[in-house]
Amino acid sequence: MQEPSKAAKPGDLALLLDARGKPFLVRLEPGGRLHTHRGVVAHEDCIGRPWGSVVRSHRGEPFYLLEPSTEELIRYLPRQTQILYPKDIGYILLKLAVRPGRLILEAGTGSGGLTLALAQAVWPLGRVITYEVRPEMQALARRNLERVGLAEMVTWRLRDIAEGFEETEADALFLDLPEPWAYLPQAAAALRSGGFFGAILPTANQVIRLLEALPAHGFGFIETVEVLLRPYHAVGWRFRPADRMVAHTGFLIFARRLLEPLATEEGTLPSALEEEEKEEPHEAFQGPV
Amino acid sequence: MQEPSKAAKPGDLALLLDARGKPFLVRLEPGGRLHTHRGVVAHEDCIGRPWGSVVRSHRGEPFYLLEPSTEELIRYLPRQTQILYPKDIGYILLKLAVRPGRLILEAGTGSGGLTLALAQAVWPLGRVITYEVRPEMQALARRNLERVGLAEMVTWRLRDIAEGFEETEADALFLDLPEPWAYLPQAAAALRSGGFFGAILPTANQVIRLLEALPAHGFGFIETVEVLLRPYHAVGWRFRPADRMVAHTGFLIFARRLLEPLATEEGTLPSALEEEEKEEPHEAFQGPV
Amino acid sequence: MQEPSKAAKPGDLALLLDARGKPFLVRLEPGGRLHTHRGVVAHEDCIGRPWGSVVRSHRGEPFYLLEPSTEELIRYLPRQTQILYPKDIGYILLKLAVRPGRLILEAGTGSGGLTLALAQAVWPLGRVITYEVRPEMQALARRNLERVGLAEMVTWRLRDIAEGFEETEADALFLDLPEPWAYLPQAAAALRSGGFFGAILPTANQVIRLLEALPAHGFGFIETVEVLLRPYHAVGWRFRPADRMVAHTGFLIFARRLLEPLATEEGTLPSALEEEEKEEPHEAFQGPV
Amino acid sequence: MQEPSKAAKPGDLALLLDARGKPFLVRLEPGGRLHTHRGVVAHEDCIGRPWGSVVRSHRGEPFYLLEPSTEELIRYLPRQTQILYPKDIGYILLKLAVRPGRLILEAGTGSGGLTLALAQAVWPLGRVITYEVRPEMQALARRNLERVGLAEMVTWRLRDIAEGFEETEADALFLDLPEPWAYLPQAAAALRSGGFFGAILPTANQVIRLLEALPAHGFGFIETVEVLLRPYHAVGWRFRPADRMVAHTGFLIFARRLLEPLATEEGTLPSALEEEEKEEPHEAFQGPV
Repeated sequence: MQEPSKAAKPGDLALLLDARGKPFLVRLEPGGRLHTHRGVVAHEDCIGRPWGSVVRSHRGEPFYLLEPSTEELIRYLPRQTQILYPKDIGYILLKLAVRPGRLILEAGTGSGGLTLALAQAVWPLGRVITYEVRPEMQALARRNLERVGLAEMVTWRLRDIAEGFEETEADALFLDLPEPWAYLPQAAAALRSGGFFGAILPTANQVIRLLEALPAHGFGFIETVEVLLRPYHAVGWRFRPADRMVAHTGFLIFARRLLEPLATEEGTLPSALEEEEKEEPHEAFQGPV
Repeated sequence: MQEPSKAAKPGDLALLLDARGKPFLVRLEPGGRLHTHRGVVAHEDCIGRPWGSVVRSHRGEPFYLLEPSTEELIRYLPRQTQILYPKDIGYILLKLAVRPGRLILEAGTGSGGLTLALAQAVWPLGRVITYEVRPEMQALARRNLERVGLAEMVTWRLRDIAEGFEETEADALFLDLPEPWAYLPQAAAALRSGGFFGAILPTANQVIRLLEALPAHGFGFIETVEVLLRPYHAVGWRFRPADRMVAHTGFLIFARRLLEPLATEEGTLPSALEEEEKEEPHEAFQGPV
Repeated sequence: MQEPSKAAKPGDLALLLDARGKPFLVRLEPGGRLHTHRGVVAHEDCIGRPWGSVVRSHRGEPFYLLEPSTEELIRYLPRQTQILYPKDIGYILLKLAVRPGRLILEAGTGSGGLTLALAQAVWPLGRVITYEVRPEMQALARRNLERVGLAEMVTWRLRDIAEGFEETEADALFLDLPEPWAYLPQAAAALRSGGFFGAILPTANQVIRLLEALPAHGFGFIETVEVLLRPYHAVGWRFRPADRMVAHTGFLIFARRLLEPLATEEGTLPSALEEEEKEEPHEAFQGPV
Repeated sequence: MQEPSKAAKPGDLALLLDARGKPFLVRLEPGGRLHTHRGVVAHEDCIGRPWGSVVRSHRGEPFYLLEPSTEELIRYLPRQTQILYPKDIGYILLKLAVRPGRLILEAGTGSGGLTLALAQAVWPLGRVITYEVRPEMQALARRNLERVGLAEMVTWRLRDIAEGFEETEADALFLDLPEPWAYLPQAAAALRSGGFFGAILPTANQVIRLLEALPAHGFGFIETVEVLLRPYHAVGWRFRPADRMVAHTGFLIFARRLLEPLATEEGTLPSALEEEEKEEPHEAFQGPV
């Protein structure tokens, strides 16, 4: 993981933004060159410069030298597949209790966007174990995490999860694949009791199939949400929502692995309460504050 | 930070959910008792039981014994003020590059919801320094973080930030107070060059004032977004959006501390591109993948 | 239909709003009395007074005397069932080309909210024919339209549409019932070629079934949308979205009755283009402007 | 207004959709020809054909012959300015009680999209009076309404409303111009007591100025909303929200012209209740149902 520093160093990932804000993500190395429509930026003009400085291309055009945020690392990740969006990833981390020291399973790896965020969040004592069946995807994801110095937090498995996960006591498990309902026995076997389950799916048809399948495999307190990011024109004298937005990336489904499925008042495994019905926070906590 | 474990231990925070999903958050201690409308649950019936188990009240009513997620810890935090919502916090963590080892400033502390998430994310080598002027709020937030074992990651400052922050090289800084535009000199002085700035504000009027003030203090690449969480009825045979939702918690404003403010093509500090205009990710990265 | 007038007359529907904006909808009649928590308002104190006046209860509390908008007439309609929301109705009127002179079919009638809007929109030469199987619902809807003077625009049929519609050349047809896919042969028989079809459904499961069934019955150019109404605090010095909102009323499905179903490039009846793909308006029109 | 008919006639506006759904709006005339990338369609091949038929270009490519809906007429209107969207117009019609027989004022005319919907809704006894200062815009809007046979419902005024409206007893008035707060005295003078006021504005800054100005000019029960249209992929086996959407067209502001402004409990003119606080409908109505 790139350490915070005052100035850009060789090997750092740098975000160069031109005067209009167009982004270029580069790994700085002596002799490296970034080619843009506004001229060539020599990496050596960046190395040693404080973050937040302006560097200039050979044509004199200014570029801002910035350290990429996690959001930018994910958004600008080299990729071959649709990646999870930061808006979704941020919420997933909180819902799955992804914390230092945890053991997190993921399938499939894809281009590694979520893998990156998971690895950073469990650092330094935890572990992410990610399954992928396509060797070229795994290789891409691994390079993506090597580039940000997080590959060593990850165990890379090239394996079809239809054969099961090798782990049995994962704290959380996330499925980003088209038919998660087909792998619920494997998921239930890999998660410890009480563990956190998550999945993302683009269509309502897929969500319906997953929601129907989850209770039979010991999952309860099922929730489904969408996270929407509404961008605004960030200009003080004409503040307004942007004209267009990404309207859908996927439905997020969360559930808990229960040890003892139980008939509830409605005759099934418990569903999560609607947001509105949930107990007010200050009432939820009991005991000495 | 509560370590993952198979079974509930004394001192653990436990989430007890009744058969309808109504939540109770308790700190388990020998002899403790949880009083609910469905009877009394003895903590000793929980201690030593695997997470995901069912325990019963003295009236025989079932309660699920679960480890709280980060999202639940925040949502059910004892509080006296409106807290940031998990949907917002998850995104803030990625936008401010809150990672292990980082130095993060926050003002005001409030009930400590964001403080908790920040402390967990910078663990074990980083530091959160949080400013608050109301002693009773600071005390509440500190108790909230002690309860989850994260108080030692935080430096608690009881001080008006009008007098300035004591730090000068913070990696990121978040303002959750009504008039953030009044503290931009202090914020700029506390952030290292290239550092990450964030704020949350409920009204458009406040956002407009902040957007107008930011460029004059060396902040650029300003973005404003809202994060919306749309809940669904998570029932397979009648899957649909929930009838009502939380429609607004706040506008999120993000910016970068620049070393060299620069006239851009539009004559001001650079604005962030609209989502749509941003370079496609695979084009943004240049160099050996 | 209540005619516009300067002052309230006997027989008019009046909206009385107390000083906090709490609404009371009354039909003014000599001797009538409105009982509220802020006292009794005599109808005779309203009759003859200009709209926009203040009248006072026997306790001296002020009430604003207003003519109800169409939106308020629908929203405050006496009802026994969930009604369509004005946000949905306004869009339906434009999508189904509900205009003066048109013949519109509706099933079921429900409490008559949509019926009211349809009847007003086809006035004076058109006709709304509405089907309902529950006599008490039909009676309520009829009273609701009599109250606003629109009942004579409507033909009220007490009949199960499983037996078919009596009409064969309707310009548009709207289904507000739980299983619209079961009545598509009847709907296709009742609509003229090229006619407009619409439906509203609360769950994704229902939408999926309808979308699957429509093409086989000669319907094409199928579209599905949700209309969301985001309310704001309309206060100048702290303008912001309201805290909560109605998040879902129903999915709206629209289609056209085609004379000649045709294999398209994707092998099925044509789907409507996504919003984004649609031709830009100025390009769509050809010929002398 | 184009009358409903079984078959296309000379002079009709026809919507021709190719096999992918790409729209072409044409006015049918003997000898007319529509040129497309899929070949030329002779108008004479359309005239006399039932709506919903397939006609073919000289290359044999199919086109569906459809009568345009009101939504399509507005969306495909030849224009030089941004027009109001159908999602907004439908709601405006209900909020302003635009009904047959009403007198509606509008400024500015723009390309005539709202004018068209207003004229259709007040037909045959009402009147729309629309103000515009740019002669070429007025000419375009007039041609647009002539094309759909609604121009005779409209009085076209080429005049700056800073000089006031000529009318004094309008039932409703809508302002679609950048600084509506500058014309509130004129608007108040033109509206009858109790009349309906509406405006659309793109930025929060403008809304704030209008909200601040309205109470001083006798307007009360002020509301602000956004109408959002969320499109879906209307395909049964993979039903899901569309990837992108129009995220903002404008804020809608509504108010009522009061005869007697009155101090309320909060010391100002009454504000509309939040959606949530509004009286439940069945409680709002009092009297014999």
